[in-house]
Amino acid sequence: MDGMDFLFKPERIAVIGASRFPEKVGYEVFKNLLQSDSKVYPVNINDGEILGKTAYKSLLEIEDEIDLAVICVPAPIVPDVLKDVVKKKVKACIIISAGFSEAGEAGRKIEEKVGQIIRKSSMRLLGPNVLGIINPTLKLNASFFDGMPKQGGISFISQSGALGVAMLDWAIKNDIGLANFASVGNMLDIDFSDLIEYFGRDENTSAIICYIEALKDGREFMKACKKVSRSKRIIVLKAGRTAAGKRAALSHTASLAGDEDIYSAAFKQAGVTRVNTLKELFNTALAASKFKTIGRNICIVSNAGGPAVIASDAFERHGFNVEPLPKDIVKKLDKVLPANWSENNPIDIIGDAKSDRYKAVFDVLAAENFFDFCLCILTPQAMTQADESARVVAEFYEKTGKPVFTCFMGGNKVEDAKKILKEHGILNFDEPEEVAQMLVNLK
Amino acid sequence: MDGMDFLFKPERIAVIGASRFPEKVGYEVFKNLLQSDSKVYPVNINDGEILGKTAYKSLLEIEDEIDLAVICVPAPIVPDVLKDVVKKKVKACIIISAGFSEAGEAGRKIEEKVGQIIRKSSMRLLGPNVLGIINPTLKLNASFFDGMPKQGGISFISQSGALGVAMLDWAIKNDIGLANFASVGNMLDIDFSDLIEYFGRDENTSAIICYIEALKDGREFMKACKKVSRSKRIIVLKAGRTAAGKRAALSHTASLAGDEDIYSAAFKQAGVTRVNTLKELFNTALAASKFKTIGRNICIVSNAGGPAVIASDAFERHGFNVEPLPKDIVKKLDKVLPANWSENNPIDIIGDAKSDRYKAVFDVLAAENFFDFCLCILTPQAMTQADESARVVAEFYEKTGKPVFTCFMGGNKVEDAKKILKEHGILNFDEPEEVAQMLVNLK
Repeated sequence: MDGMDFLFKPERIAVIGASRFPEKVGYEVFKNLLQSDSKVYPVNINDGEILGKTAYKSLLEIEDEIDLAVICVPAPIVPDVLKDVVKKKVKACIIISAGFSEAGEAGRKIEEKVGQIIRKSSMRLLGPNVLGIINPTLKLNASFFDGMPKQGGISFISQSGALGVAMLDWAIKNDIGLANFASVGNMLDIDFSDLIEYFGRDENTSAIICYIEALKDGREFMKACKKVSRSKRIIVLKAGRTAAGKRAALSHTASLAGDEDIYSAAFKQAGVTRVNTLKELFNTALAASKFKTIGRNICIVSNAGGPAVIASDAFERHGFNVEPLPKDIVKKLDKVLPANWSENNPIDIIGDAKSDRYKAVFDVLAAENFFDFCLCILTPQAMTQADESARVVAEFYEKTGKPVFTCFMGGNKVEDAKKILKEHGILNFDEPEEVAQMLVNLK
Repeated sequence: MDGMDFLFKPERIAVIGASRFPEKVGYEVFKNLLQSDSKVYPVNINDGEILGKTAYKSLLEIEDEIDLAVICVPAPIVPDVLKDVVKKKVKACIIISAGFSEAGEAGRKIEEKVGQIIRKSSMRLLGPNVLGIINPTLKLNASFFDGMPKQGGISFISQSGALGVAMLDWAIKNDIGLANFASVGNMLDIDFSDLIEYFGRDENTSAIICYIEALKDGREFMKACKKVSRSKRIIVLKAGRTAAGKRAALSHTASLAGDEDIYSAAFKQAGVTRVNTLKELFNTALAASKFKTIGRNICIVSNAGGPAVIASDAFERHGFNVEPLPKDIVKKLDKVLPANWSENNPIDIIGDAKSDRYKAVFDVLAAENFFDFCLCILTPQAMTQADESARVVAEFYEKTGKPVFTCFMGGNKVEDAKKILKEHGILNFDEPEEVAQMLVNLK
């Protein structure tokens, strides 16, 4: 185990600046950490008892070894506190406190002192000015975000704490699982490249997503990405892409967002997938967790002609092929579908289709290779069996492993079916355009 | 009142083919119509009693005048039934039954007969092969869709019944209000142009949305749009745009989707707004219901730097201007914001902003004209007051009428705030890209 392991999998954690006042960050962090299986030690120079635990006046009073120290005290006190942390030979440290280089000249000077202390030790430091880290597998929340996403395959690195909070809250509501979360803040030590390398070897991580405003060390970032992207998809939303975005980034972080062309070329060279929206960031990662790449040939199955036409448009517009059905497939489907089916791709199984008709088609498709992936469309018509049809799609995926995505369109009438799809790991989207837009990133 | 009025605002309705068997379309239609204030007469040659009402053996047995006849009998019987409808001098008629030109040669012949009967009368006909119509203002549901959207300003015309069902269900779930819904089916008589003209003069309609697969009479359509688009926004999703989409449309409706360039040029000339996705179709209509056009200059207010940068990127990419703040505005805001605010557009009011800081900014903006519209971003941080901030935005909108859109980002933490925004008619989106993409249509 190295410093990065101790950051995400600590057994003994000290919270320096743990507080019994609920409005303080040191309260929220300590409360969150109590939910984990790790042993947590509150350190506070004043408070006697915090959430039922007796506080240590100083880190050095703790007899046990400490794997991770989480610092929540005001910035001016941080250097002194940090000296104790180094003295105690703590393996990893998070400085949550703000008020450093992001806050002007005085803060910049404190950050310099912190840097000097850190450079003399072998301890790894995340921060300062971060939300913290979350490891759902261990129910470990070393941050002041009051929630716990479910366990999943995505590791999420955010350069903005506020955006981190919003997207964690969004992920919980949308039942999206995470392997890890980390906010990087001022990146005095640990930066994107360290985290990408670490998540690259983390067995719980199947895809890595980054929200980036500006890189401190582009070379190291690219090196890490080149290495990791061979085995895991790295997807990036880089803000400050346009002139207006750059101006906004400048007044936000006082950092130059950098030359767009250079970023784009470098991302491409390093095997990084770049997206424009937060939804694409998460959806692409969800798909990438299952399918490393996606081919160009789509097969569309639908119980409605209109949405099938819309889907054909969407996928062709995004550079996919909606090839006509091979003749032998038409013959096979003729035997199981009513006379008025489309006899082509999209396979329109007609509005009165029950789930058995979906099943008949997917049974044929299971043995075929003329397509790279499937889109299954369902609209809730009079005869439609949405739940059963969802199970048919799930069974097809589980049996064949072939990439299949769904658009079960509607509201309450497809609500339960969507849950069934989600339970079986099928990604459902509101409309075909969203699937096409997302899959472009995996071509 | 003309035939179109009797279609959407009938006082006396006969359901021909009303049925007591729940699996029949004639049962669903009759059941739905019983929810309205109109007087509804079941007609069925066999059944004695349907949902507590005694059925008439024939339409001609009804003594009262009939405004609207809804026909649900099998296609081959329709011509005979229709003769009675014409004889009875019914003002408007919906043929819900399928099995006409869309179903092959035999059906085409029946449709021809229906056409001959209709041409001899002054009655207006919707169909055949339609889902029906819905007028939420009158709680009138003359369709086999089992639901009622709330009342609102959008009139929705769909050439696909299945897509109609899906989007009605979606609208109900997403609490989107409709003025009217109509599915047009085979367009033997009433087509897009009739409906657009009618919704053009319907006082409940503030925007018209169309899902189009193929037009029968492009010239009439354009004429109607040219006339109506002067006062109301017409937004169209036209499927069959790409080669693959055209092939799919051909096998779906056996109609040629037509030449794309001609469609595009004609739409533009007729003042029609064309969109690519269903979400854009509805969101653009929602915005158009409030604001006829939107200028290019955006002012962004945010409690988080990252999302503000993302927003700047999104709007600049879509051709909007994120102009630097005028100096006098900076001075005014300096007085009400903390020292570390962005001093520029986006107006970053810093992560610890409570609702009073949003209010201070919007109080300044209320008196200014350097921007055409506002985007207010909120991420749920420790100090954030999402609900109160939502009320601040609503108050700004109600007081000034200036266009303002929001991105309250997150999940459960912004759930209540989103409801407050919706109640006050503020359109909230998950992320800035969605707002920009939608507003492009209103430039």
